[in-house]
Amino acid sequence: MRILAFDTSNQPLSVAVVEGDRILAEQLINVKRNHSVQLMPIIDEVLKQAKLSLDDIDRIAVAQGPGSYTGLRIAVTIAKSLAWTKGIDLVGVSSLKVVAGNRLDEHTGELILPIFDARRQNIYTGLYTRGEDGELLEVMEEVHVAAEQWAEMLAQREWSSPLTLIGADASAFFEIFHEKLGDQVRLARPEQHLPRASVLAFLAQKEETTSAHSFTPTYLKLAEAEENWLKEHPDSEGGNWVEKI
Amino acid sequence: MRILAFDTSNQPLSVAVVEGDRILAEQLINVKRNHSVQLMPIIDEVLKQAKLSLDDIDRIAVAQGPGSYTGLRIAVTIAKSLAWTKGIDLVGVSSLKVVAGNRLDEHTGELILPIFDARRQNIYTGLYTRGEDGELLEVMEEVHVAAEQWAEMLAQREWSSPLTLIGADASAFFEIFHEKLGDQVRLARPEQHLPRASVLAFLAQKEETTSAHSFTPTYLKLAEAEENWLKEHPDSEGGNWVEKI
Repeated sequence: MRILAFDTSNQPLSVAVVEGDRILAEQLINVKRNHSVQLMPIIDEVLKQAKLSLDDIDRIAVAQGPGSYTGLRIAVTIAKSLAWTKGIDLVGVSSLKVVAGNRLDEHTGELILPIFDARRQNIYTGLYTRGEDGELLEVMEEVHVAAEQWAEMLAQREWSSPLTLIGADASAFFEIFHEKLGDQVRLARPEQHLPRASVLAFLAQKEETTSAHSFTPTYLKLAEAEENWLKEHPDSEGGNWVEKI
Repeated sequence: MRILAFDTSNQPLSVAVVEGDRILAEQLINVKRNHSVQLMPIIDEVLKQAKLSLDDIDRIAVAQGPGSYTGLRIAVTIAKSLAWTKGIDLVGVSSLKVVAGNRLDEHTGELILPIFDARRQNIYTGLYTRGEDGELLEVMEEVHVAAEQWAEMLAQREWSSPLTLIGADASAFFEIFHEKLGDQVRLARPEQHLPRASVLAFLAQKEETTSAHSFTPTYLKLAEAEENWLKEHPDSEGGNWVEKI
C-alpha cells in the first residue's frame, strides 16, 4: 500500500510517501512559513522524488489535530480535496499521536506525553504507551488543558514507568511538570520532537478509513472568535461552529 | 551552531540543516536516482527551506563511509569543495554510525548492529552501544566481512543485551544472524532503517573537525578495480590507491 501523508498541525511541515514498510521520500521544514502556499508544491515535489503520481497513491493520511487552526484547515482541506477528486482512501490520525510515535520503542514500557503549546499556559496533550503488538495505545484521552492542572493530575497518580515529554513545545513546559513530578518526567531527545509524515503514514496503515466528505479537524478547543461569539449569543446551542457553516 | 549535513553513502539520499538542538529542514529520498545530479540542487533547496545560505553555515557534516564508492565520492567531494571554498569546518562521521544513531534511546542498553550490503554475502558492519552520557560508543571496530563469519563471531560471545540489526539491508541478512544467534537478535523498526542527515548533524556536533584538504572517504575495502590491479602488480606497496592518485 502506497500512502501520501502530510502534517501541518503546527509550525513544522512534513510530507512523506511510504510504500509498505519503506519510506520513499520525505520532507520536513521547521521554519516559520506559509503552509497554505507551501504544502501543495511540496506534496507535488515529494511525489516526484518518489517517482510516483497521485494515481499511484492508495491512501492519504493527514494529521487531523489538535494544533493551529489555520494549519489544520489547510492540511485537512487539501487531504479531503485530493481524496475526493481522485477517489483515494482518507485516514486522519491525531497530531499528538504522530509525535508520540517518534518514541515508539520496542523495549520500553514508558508513558509518552505529547505536548503542543495552546497559548496562555494551556496545552494540547494526551498520554500514550506501547501495546503488546507495538501499537500506540491511548492511556488518557487527548485534552486542551492548563499545563499546571495536567501536571497536578498526573502527580496524584502512581506511575510504574517514566513519563517522557515530547513535541516541539515540550521543553518550554518541562519545568512545570518537573516541579510536580520530579525525576519521573524527562524530555525526549531533541531530534524526536518534530512530527514526521513517515510516522504518520505508518500509523495510518492500521487505522480505519474515513469519509472524505464529512471529515473535519479535531480542534479540541473552540477558536477564540467562536468563544466570543458564544459569549455574545448565550442562547445559541453551541457545538461545532465551523461544521455548521 | 548551524550544521549542513548530507549522506549519500548508499541508495538513500538525505540532506539536513540543523541549528543547535533544532532541525530546520530535512529531505530524504529513497528511490534509485543519480546522486551526482541530485545532491547539489537538494542542498540548495534545503538551505532555502531553512531560510539560510551557505554563509550562515558553521559546519559541514558528511557521512564518510563505508558504502557505495560512487555515492561516497560524490558526497565527500562536494563536502570538501564547499568547506574549502567557503572556509567552513568539516566533520566526517561513519555512515554506519549515522544509521546506528536512529536507535539511540535513553533507556535501553541494547547493542546496535548497523548493516550495509557489500555484495556477495559480505557486509559493512560494526557494533555500537549507548554510553552514559547518551553518546554512541563503538563496541567493535567497523569491518568489511562475510555476513556469516560476523554472525558466527558474535555467537561465540556472551551478550547481556539484545542485538538490534539496523540499516536498509538489515532485513535481507536477518536470517543469517537469527540462525546463529536465535532470539538474541531482532530487527529495528521499519522507519529506523534509513540514514537521517539530521542524526548525522547531531552526531557531528560532538566530533572533531578535520582538514578539508586531506579528508578521504572510509571505504573499508578496496574497489574491485583496485583489487585486480594489486593482483596483477604483486610488487606494489598496496595501500590507498585513490589517495595516491
